[in-house]
Amino acid sequence: MITSNANGKVKQVVLWQTKAKERRRDGIFLAEGFKMYEEAPADSIVEAYVSEETEKRFLDDRTAKNHNIWRKLQISGYEVVSDEVFAKMSDTQTPQGILCVLKRPEYDFRRLLKQEKPLFVILENLQDPGNLGTILRTGEGAGITGVIMTEGTVDVFNPKTIRATMGSVFRVPFAYVDSIQEAMESLHKEGIHTYAAHLEGKTYYQDISYKEPTAFLIGNEGGGLSKEAARLAERYIKIPMEGRVESLNAAVAAAVLMYEAHRQRN
Amino acid sequence: MITSNANGKVKQVVLWQTKAKERRRDGIFLAEGFKMYEEAPADSIVEAYVSEETEKRFLDDRTAKNHNIWRKLQISGYEVVSDEVFAKMSDTQTPQGILCVLKRPEYDFRRLLKQEKPLFVILENLQDPGNLGTILRTGEGAGITGVIMTEGTVDVFNPKTIRATMGSVFRVPFAYVDSIQEAMESLHKEGIHTYAAHLEGKTYYQDISYKEPTAFLIGNEGGGLSKEAARLAERYIKIPMEGRVESLNAAVAAAVLMYEAHRQRN
Repeated sequence: MITSNANGKVKQVVLWQTKAKERRRDGIFLAEGFKMYEEAPADSIVEAYVSEETEKRFLDDRTAKNHNIWRKLQISGYEVVSDEVFAKMSDTQTPQGILCVLKRPEYDFRRLLKQEKPLFVILENLQDPGNLGTILRTGEGAGITGVIMTEGTVDVFNPKTIRATMGSVFRVPFAYVDSIQEAMESLHKEGIHTYAAHLEGKTYYQDISYKEPTAFLIGNEGGGLSKEAARLAERYIKIPMEGRVESLNAAVAAAVLMYEAHRQRN
Repeated sequence: MITSNANGKVKQVVLWQTKAKERRRDGIFLAEGFKMYEEAPADSIVEAYVSEETEKRFLDDRTAKNHNIWRKLQISGYEVVSDEVFAKMSDTQTPQGILCVLKRPEYDFRRLLKQEKPLFVILENLQDPGNLGTILRTGEGAGITGVIMTEGTVDVFNPKTIRATMGSVFRVPFAYVDSIQEAMESLHKEGIHTYAAHLEGKTYYQDISYKEPTAFLIGNEGGGLSKEAARLAERYIKIPMEGRVESLNAAVAAAVLMYEAHRQRN
């Protein structure tokens, strides 16, 4: 059992929790909690850490051998750490006592575009990790085929993002693109229609058919889409807003659009 | 200028920021930032605080007399506090240097129900202040007539909620109810149809007409609606979910339902 914060593995996990650059360099990300561990693809789990208390609960439980999580731990292997050390390694206030290190999935942007019935969300410089995670979660629910992000978008492997995805990060393909212009050109070449959610849109979102290949452009929380990105879109669309509301939360706007596409397609 | 954290007014604001009970006892709430101050109804502003730096920026700006905020401050009056003290009073990491104390709006639950074309969201024990604020903001956008909350729901006057409303808290009526059972009976008596967003729903949300008086029941983030509350609803509805998604974020679920009602009504 690891009982010291000075342990090399512990120090490495803490670095990965806090530094996007470290995670990127090592090609890994972290996921915490029972649900995330259970849903993690077994072949991408590099390390698993279990707190002393969590292991004890499994060991004391005679029915544990029927638990997916306990069985998975037996196969993948795991390291026990004291509760104090676990608290240090965890990104949450009330850790669930299980944490794993995972290989990053890699998706090729150009191959993503070749999927059938494409439905994408393109995020330009989204800043809030919770919003990004919520968009992946909602996106899986609405049946999207991928999330495309500009380089300036928050790290999809941020621990807060991972948590907010509730496991969808393991299943929704995503890719970062260097140039929004090149990305849009590639989409258009593949016959994917692009719609910018924009305050100056004249057409209401519900008046367009999304049965064709579709991508929605969503801008960042503070300023919406940049002029450059909006100009690249085939068409502006507008979500109607009553009262004095000037904009919607980015994850809410994405949800309304993705579920309208889902509604039309089913 | 107030320069000490020991100042009585400063200590009071800090208490109000952190203690729901104090806010309730005094019948007030706090709002921070330029947008919130600008949108605050002038007759409900009790006190306004401006940081030294923010006042200086207005004083140095010859065009300040044309700013809504500066004009409003001249009329309502304000107190200047040093930047350090303002940071102490603020609930945010990067304070905008303006904060106001407001009288709470009061809405009578029974009168809320008498509005024309009612469209309500009923929240049972919602826990996340950001989610609640987002629901008010989205709700105003979708043209709802009010938010009804069970007593166990997070405080709508929580500073994080207020911030997430982006000003909608000043315009969307809301009420807490002691008993979900009595509340539902009142809704039904007024002819308002109640729909519980529920995983066991057989009817998809988009297959129902919301042109009639409507209320959507949304449960809490962890466990959804309680059995008791769900049973009281006229009907279960289901938001379709692809992949392995088991539920949507509460604010996202509310958004999808409210905007579907808006789509049908317009």
